[in-house]
Amino acid sequence: MFEAAELGQSVDKETYAREVATLREELLAAQQELRKADFPVIVVIGGVDGAGKGETVNTLLEWMDPRYIETFALGAPTDEERGRPRYWRFWRALPPRGKIGIFFGGWHSAPIVDRAYRNIKQAEMERQLAEVVAFERLLVDDGALLVKFWMHLSKERQRKRLKSLAKDPRTRWRVTDMDWEHFEMYDRFAKISAHALRRTSTGAAPWTIVEGDDRRYQTLTVGRHLLACLRAQLAARAPGAAAPVAPTITAAQPPPPPAEPRTIVSTLDLSQRLDDETYEHKLEECQGALNLAARKAAKAGLSTVVVYEGVDAAGKGGNIRRVTGALDARMYRIVPIAAPTEEERQHPYLWRFWRHLPRGGNVTIFDRSWYGRVLVERVEGFCKPADWMRAYSEINDFEEQLVGHGVVLVKFWLQIGKDEQLRRFEDRAATNFKRFKITDDDWRNRERWDAYEQAVNDMVERTSTEHAPWTLVATNDKRFARIQALETLHAAISRAL
Amino acid sequence: MFEAAELGQSVDKETYAREVATLREELLAAQQELRKADFPVIVVIGGVDGAGKGETVNTLLEWMDPRYIETFALGAPTDEERGRPRYWRFWRALPPRGKIGIFFGGWHSAPIVDRAYRNIKQAEMERQLAEVVAFERLLVDDGALLVKFWMHLSKERQRKRLKSLAKDPRTRWRVTDMDWEHFEMYDRFAKISAHALRRTSTGAAPWTIVEGDDRRYQTLTVGRHLLACLRAQLAARAPGAAAPVAPTITAAQPPPPPAEPRTIVSTLDLSQRLDDETYEHKLEECQGALNLAARKAAKAGLSTVVVYEGVDAAGKGGNIRRVTGALDARMYRIVPIAAPTEEERQHPYLWRFWRHLPRGGNVTIFDRSWYGRVLVERVEGFCKPADWMRAYSEINDFEEQLVGHGVVLVKFWLQIGKDEQLRRFEDRAATNFKRFKITDDDWRNRERWDAYEQAVNDMVERTSTEHAPWTLVATNDKRFARIQALETLHAAISRAL
Repeated sequence: MFEAAELGQSVDKETYAREVATLREELLAAQQELRKADFPVIVVIGGVDGAGKGETVNTLLEWMDPRYIETFALGAPTDEERGRPRYWRFWRALPPRGKIGIFFGGWHSAPIVDRAYRNIKQAEMERQLAEVVAFERLLVDDGALLVKFWMHLSKERQRKRLKSLAKDPRTRWRVTDMDWEHFEMYDRFAKISAHALRRTSTGAAPWTIVEGDDRRYQTLTVGRHLLACLRAQLAARAPGAAAPVAPTITAAQPPPPPAEPRTIVSTLDLSQRLDDETYEHKLEECQGALNLAARKAAKAGLSTVVVYEGVDAAGKGGNIRRVTGALDARMYRIVPIAAPTEEERQHPYLWRFWRHLPRGGNVTIFDRSWYGRVLVERVEGFCKPADWMRAYSEINDFEEQLVGHGVVLVKFWLQIGKDEQLRRFEDRAATNFKRFKITDDDWRNRERWDAYEQAVNDMVERTSTEHAPWTLVATNDKRFARIQALETLHAAISRAL
Repeated sequence: MFEAAELGQSVDKETYAREVATLREELLAAQQELRKADFPVIVVIGGVDGAGKGETVNTLLEWMDPRYIETFALGAPTDEERGRPRYWRFWRALPPRGKIGIFFGGWHSAPIVDRAYRNIKQAEMERQLAEVVAFERLLVDDGALLVKFWMHLSKERQRKRLKSLAKDPRTRWRVTDMDWEHFEMYDRFAKISAHALRRTSTGAAPWTIVEGDDRRYQTLTVGRHLLACLRAQLAARAPGAAAPVAPTITAAQPPPPPAEPRTIVSTLDLSQRLDDETYEHKLEECQGALNLAARKAAKAGLSTVVVYEGVDAAGKGGNIRRVTGALDARMYRIVPIAAPTEEERQHPYLWRFWRHLPRGGNVTIFDRSWYGRVLVERVEGFCKPADWMRAYSEINDFEEQLVGHGVVLVKFWLQIGKDEQLRRFEDRAATNFKRFKITDDDWRNRERWDAYEQAVNDMVERTSTEHAPWTLVATNDKRFARIQALETLHAAISRAL
């Protein structure tokens, strides 16, 4: 795999000077155009120690306008980062549309280094590489231009490079013990890197291997390649561009309508009830049990994420309050999801949920959630079918990361019958202090009852996974629903403890 | 000071039930109105251990809509927080307009606890309390409703409370060794707290001391007071409300125009130049020296913040690139300041700068900065005189915190003559690849040359402080300006090392 990057490529001084003069101007112009474009550029710089990663990026920043480029050299995770799923640190660093983010190492380093040091087994590395692929797929599907460079040096050249860096007093500081330690493991690193590169070189996000021996050749190659990619993407995403941006997505078509109008929602027994006395008794019992479990979880550093979705007027608010009634204020947070802000729209869809993930030991309740994409956005046509179609797998990957990090994830779908909804709407409209709870939107949504039911059906079918199952809650009787939610949550936390 | 909170106040069950029924509805209605209002509500809950801080907040959340309230119980700072000035953690937690944020302890705890434990001297506590006052002043001036409750218990009652909590197996977990340790220091804590409360009880942000002995009395008192404050603020800030929102500010009037048209800018010798040869030689020398100093600083965990402000076309971009040319890409970040985003507009003016503060060991370059408020926003009338007038002291406080944290702060004002600006504008308009650099705004700003010069004069006069002086840079000759910036920056970092 690396043979083609050990050819001893070089560029002489005059050619370099001549080429750079034009390249700089063209890079600047492309960057200027990018600022108005609707996609971000993500550059990943990986590779062997001493292969000129830093020098290359320094040169790129010299050539371009550094004000619209952010560079991330992510070292050891901070304690805030360790308290969250591994990709949180990458999500928080993603550049917004119109900007460039350069990542040293990026999300590929951990699986390679951990495997080289035998901290993880082959199977775990494979799983992590699959995560890399899924993450990059998401970025590219969202429109990002992802350009990945791998800086290579042969073993012999690396040794010479490290030696010469170590000899010069001006560069000695750059050669650490870890560099030499890595060098001792050159062959192992090379083998594992080659494998990782193969696994993560996809059509939409291929690696470009660059020989790191001659600085002029290297920077020119990187600059030229970046320019070519930038230009192609700018052309492809220009208004009125003919070619589909991400051809792979267009193959995904919405699921066919069901043969008979029977959905998972329609099979739910909405008549389940609890009488007042049983309710009051159970409420106290369940809240007490949940309080105890939540306190134990907090002590154990166990986080819980609860998702509340449901039909309008199904009683989400009241249900949530019965849950928070069992918790200490210092322990939970409710995140109500409304329309995304300007900054959130500049990032991939899931960014706004990643940013709200709490550190360990807390309970976070999402009042509406990332499922908006496959519910309201799908039904109301706020996003393209390709966007909500890919959301299912993006959401599954996201939830797998949460659960993989040890988070207890509980998802509630609250369902009422159509008649019961009408009754509640009318009650709200008639009662003074409830009137603010009913809007024109609610009536409009009601007219699309069947479309929503279909969307819910597809959602449950595609995202009720082993690690993150849905709990369907019949809420014609609010008391029954509250007890079910409390019991489900308590059981989930207890299982995890 | 606490005598009035040791009267044994209590509320009987029936009164409580009756009062709470109305209070809840009124609180909910006020909260509903708040969601459309243009100010945030910040509630601080301080006080003695075991005085029911948690219970009170839990009850408030039960009464109100918890989806629009965020609760912050800030424990030991995370390493990301420790890497930044102390108030960073509070800034990042501030609620946006229309929402409520409840802080347990808040910014008052540290000075009180640190002084009680003799970690800091009296003078340092006084300084920190002055910081508290300045911070709260800023919040209130920005429109926030700040409601501060201090929960009090007499020594005897506290001992009983801790004992009874420790006896009950359901509440035992809540009493920690530290609580008993604090109790042993009750008198010392009481004395210091009383002093701190007096110092930080200002007209705009007074403390309300609440007797923490009877839970019903306590929650009812807090709920009623919060409601009264909310209603008053909603009325005061309603469109067309008569009373000035913050009467203290209206006294601040813009500085009088100078007697003679002589400004600090007009005294700058713009004719200073460097010939090409000297420049090339010095550039290499200065960049080398800066590189070395910056590396040492990174190793020492020393951060540097550089502010670039200047007349249009004064050569900010080129000057910045000569500085970054000396730095490693992994070490610096440029933050270009444009119009604030939607989320940034939901917070006080300085929030957007606080959020960009880097962790220790880095160089952050602000390309335009917080001075926009007293420059473009003042001259173009984007904010009210009272707003930019108070910005001077807010900025000084902000910079004092940076410097107090050990940050090297360097501020450049880049100045060219009016003729030289015209020459550069015309050159830009005529040159193909420079044309994007000149906009209609630039020409408009030029027409207000004198107003800007006056604003710069006032800015330098009011914000060139001992800890954060301005460096005025004459940039009719770009080479001279670049060397001056490099030398100034190098000197500042070297001094700090």
